[in-house]
Amino acid sequence: MGAAKSPEILFLKQEDVIKAGVLDMKKTIDDIETVFKMYAAGEIDQPVKTLMEFPDPITKDRGRLVVSMPVYLGGNIKRAGVKWAAESLENQRTGRLPYGIDLVILHDLDAAHPVAIMDGTLITAMRTSAASGVAAKYLANLDSKIAGMVGAGVIGRTAIETYLATFPKLEEVRMFDLDHSKSEGLAQEFRNRIKIRVADDARQAVEGAEVIATQTTTRKHFLKREWIKGANFYAQMGTNEAEEAEILGADVLVVDDWGAIGHYAPGYLAQLVNAGTLDTSRILELKNIVSGKVKPRTSPNQHILFKSMGMGSEDIIVAERIYQTAKAMGIGQTLKLWDNPLWL
Amino acid sequence: MGAAKSPEILFLKQEDVIKAGVLDMKKTIDDIETVFKMYAAGEIDQPVKTLMEFPDPITKDRGRLVVSMPVYLGGNIKRAGVKWAAESLENQRTGRLPYGIDLVILHDLDAAHPVAIMDGTLITAMRTSAASGVAAKYLANLDSKIAGMVGAGVIGRTAIETYLATFPKLEEVRMFDLDHSKSEGLAQEFRNRIKIRVADDARQAVEGAEVIATQTTTRKHFLKREWIKGANFYAQMGTNEAEEAEILGADVLVVDDWGAIGHYAPGYLAQLVNAGTLDTSRILELKNIVSGKVKPRTSPNQHILFKSMGMGSEDIIVAERIYQTAKAMGIGQTLKLWDNPLWL
Repeated sequence: MGAAKSPEILFLKQEDVIKAGVLDMKKTIDDIETVFKMYAAGEIDQPVKTLMEFPDPITKDRGRLVVSMPVYLGGNIKRAGVKWAAESLENQRTGRLPYGIDLVILHDLDAAHPVAIMDGTLITAMRTSAASGVAAKYLANLDSKIAGMVGAGVIGRTAIETYLATFPKLEEVRMFDLDHSKSEGLAQEFRNRIKIRVADDARQAVEGAEVIATQTTTRKHFLKREWIKGANFYAQMGTNEAEEAEILGADVLVVDDWGAIGHYAPGYLAQLVNAGTLDTSRILELKNIVSGKVKPRTSPNQHILFKSMGMGSEDIIVAERIYQTAKAMGIGQTLKLWDNPLWL
Repeated sequence: MGAAKSPEILFLKQEDVIKAGVLDMKKTIDDIETVFKMYAAGEIDQPVKTLMEFPDPITKDRGRLVVSMPVYLGGNIKRAGVKWAAESLENQRTGRLPYGIDLVILHDLDAAHPVAIMDGTLITAMRTSAASGVAAKYLANLDSKIAGMVGAGVIGRTAIETYLATFPKLEEVRMFDLDHSKSEGLAQEFRNRIKIRVADDARQAVEGAEVIATQTTTRKHFLKREWIKGANFYAQMGTNEAEEAEILGADVLVVDDWGAIGHYAPGYLAQLVNAGTLDTSRILELKNIVSGKVKPRTSPNQHILFKSMGMGSEDIIVAERIYQTAKAMGIGQTLKLWDNPLWL
């Protein structure tokens, strides 16, 4: 036996994660495309995430949650990790903390030791929209000029970045949020890069848009199929935005991971399947499209709906890039789980 | 909206966790008893843990694993948390790192923000044996004098502590481990507190003992019912130690959490149930015994088997005590997930 080891954990706060490149949307989209290819190739072990929801003390509706998303990425990456995510309506009310706050841990499987702990808040925001970008790359009309969006929070911002990176001819984003100041803030923030028109209501934001994205925390459907059926691509990143007619009426219905979406009964698709209204044979998985197994777009007139719940593998592949970059740059704070382990 | 907040995370390395009292077995047993009472009262949200196993590169058998154990403790505690646990046979071979290495994260549900990240390695070792202590308190003959144990690793050490705390008349622990030096090390370590007789084989350790505990990483049954059927209590902390005849033949069979044990097919009890050999009506849960709902010991001659897999709630309740103690003592290192969050 050798001497006891005291391996290091690299702790990366949000500022470190930014320095290491988390805001690079093109790289994030590449990472996410890689993950879907790996998933299709059977190189990812991704058990169904564990979601715990708690009532909000004020609305009494589900308003606080924690989610555990353990993953193993095989292939050339060989990294185990977990994202531990939390969301709270309380933060939305006070505006003093992000609505969602996340932590990512990367692990060395051989040594059974964590190698990195980092803020996962921006990783989550970036990868969530980037998945819609990967879906759009394979499913949308990439010449689209007008995007309609609902939800001007953190994911709204990254959704604009994603569509900017995905649709080279994009001319305008129409944005609605119940809080107008948020839409206006984004319009201001992006003013030198893209025209953002602040919409008065959701309908105005999406009607007539060629590509749509919604990213809200709503618990009630508000998006009418009538308004959006002319769009060629719609990425629904929230749980409950589109009415039943849209889910059932879309020409093609694609999800990121049916394992998780189908598992959680409060999810709208799971409810429709359980009620016998939606046949699972209609639900395609993005991995099979990215791998080329299925090519669902056969005409420019199709209306294709992409519904995502988010996958831990998306977080871990981005976190791995951040970790490697931070190491190479000498960024971050070194932690030790012990100076000397008491018991071996 | 107020100014953005930068809440603190208390990072506790193993030395801090020790200062904050993790090695106090009596407190740990109290914590675990509380957890089982809370579990019985419906105050704990404990989804089935997510276990991922990977082949060991040398033995080709399962030899590396990571487990995610998210939990919410309600009642007076109100704490969400997750234990992220890893094990590797590689560490057992090199002897330079513990076989199992764990991290515990405690979360504030309202703020969706982690409040503590700590080494969970000793917490795991302490709570695993402590659960057997709680089971023994309700199921064993507490006048027992002779304990027989197999497995002199980390959990072997805490098992001795547990039995010392639980059986006031304990005179002797008979210990076997494939690595004799480990048993000898423990005999030396405990020489002023209890006589530890190093056994030549497993049979010698357990035959004639009144209470038994096994804590090994074996994948093959080695413990014969014939050797141990005279014992009044047997705590099986490993997965596969006792042969089928023992599982089926014990007068009473108690588990810590059938939700998890029944879920994992590689687990021996799940196999027996799936094969139709073991009826689930025979399987009692410890929470119902601690709450007084079931009193399975009706005679001193009964042989009662307690099989545990470990519960995340055990880790979180101990971690919460450590966290509160460390805060009060001013121990640990303060981390910030950000100086200022980029996006609110």
